Amino acid sequence: MSIIYENTEVRIEIEDSEIPWLKIFTQDQCKEMTDCSAKTKQQIWHLLDVIEGEMLTYFKPEKINIASFANYVPQVHWHIMARFKEDSYYPECMWGKKQREGTAKFASMEGFVRQLLSKLD
Amino acid sequence: MSIIYENTEVRIEIEDSEIPWLKIFTQDQCKEMTDCSAKTKQQIWHLLDVIEGEMLTYFKPEKINIASFANYVPQVHWHIMARFKEDSYYPECMWGKKQREGTAKFASMEGFVRQLLSKLD
Repeated sequence: MSIIYENTEVRIEIEDSEIPWLKIFTQDQCKEMTDCSAKTKQQIWHLLDVIEGEMLTYFKPEKINIASFANYVPQVHWHIMARFKEDSYYPECMWGKKQREGTAKFASMEGFVRQLLSKLD
Repeated sequence: MSIIYENTEVRIEIEDSEIPWLKIFTQDQCKEMTDCSAKTKQQIWHLLDVIEGEMLTYFKPEKINIASFANYVPQVHWHIMARFKEDSYYPECMWGKKQREGTAKFASMEGFVRQLLSKLD
């Protein structure tokens, strides 16, 4: 577990993956988004928007993918992923059928985290 | 293609599936959410919230799943799905590995659409 940011509503973690992949968790126990406070929901929509924009600028991926499932652990969390034509699953989603041995190249995650944190309060 | 609702920013379609599954498309050509107008983004966040709430009340599913990929057709669209323990993929996401022959039972989609539309302007 690698937390890069947190405030009273949410925390952001890096998912260990071949692609740039962040997860936003709610600090309160919410099974569904509709269980979250208005403030938490606003935080999540805002952070998805900021992270997507920063991922597009920094990694120049083919596409951004976003998802919230939480079927195994019923605690709201959002996945936000930068996808590349050369990653192992593209154009399938990261939960789909593997297409190849991934060879996607992109700038360092460390630099991205620094750039992202400079945009958050 | 089965459109059940549209306004100037978005349209809502039913996905033909064994589970209750709606898709929200942007009317404007947006590859990513950050390409959409603030009004369109707000509409989407609002509709995801309303649809989730109505799906929970009406279908009483195990979990709501939400996703935006658009890797095949680069046009922003959001999937919102009511998941049941007895559906073919649970607890995997609908793009994951099939777990069984689904036997989920739930109230009629027609009744749900009527209830949902009564909540939208």
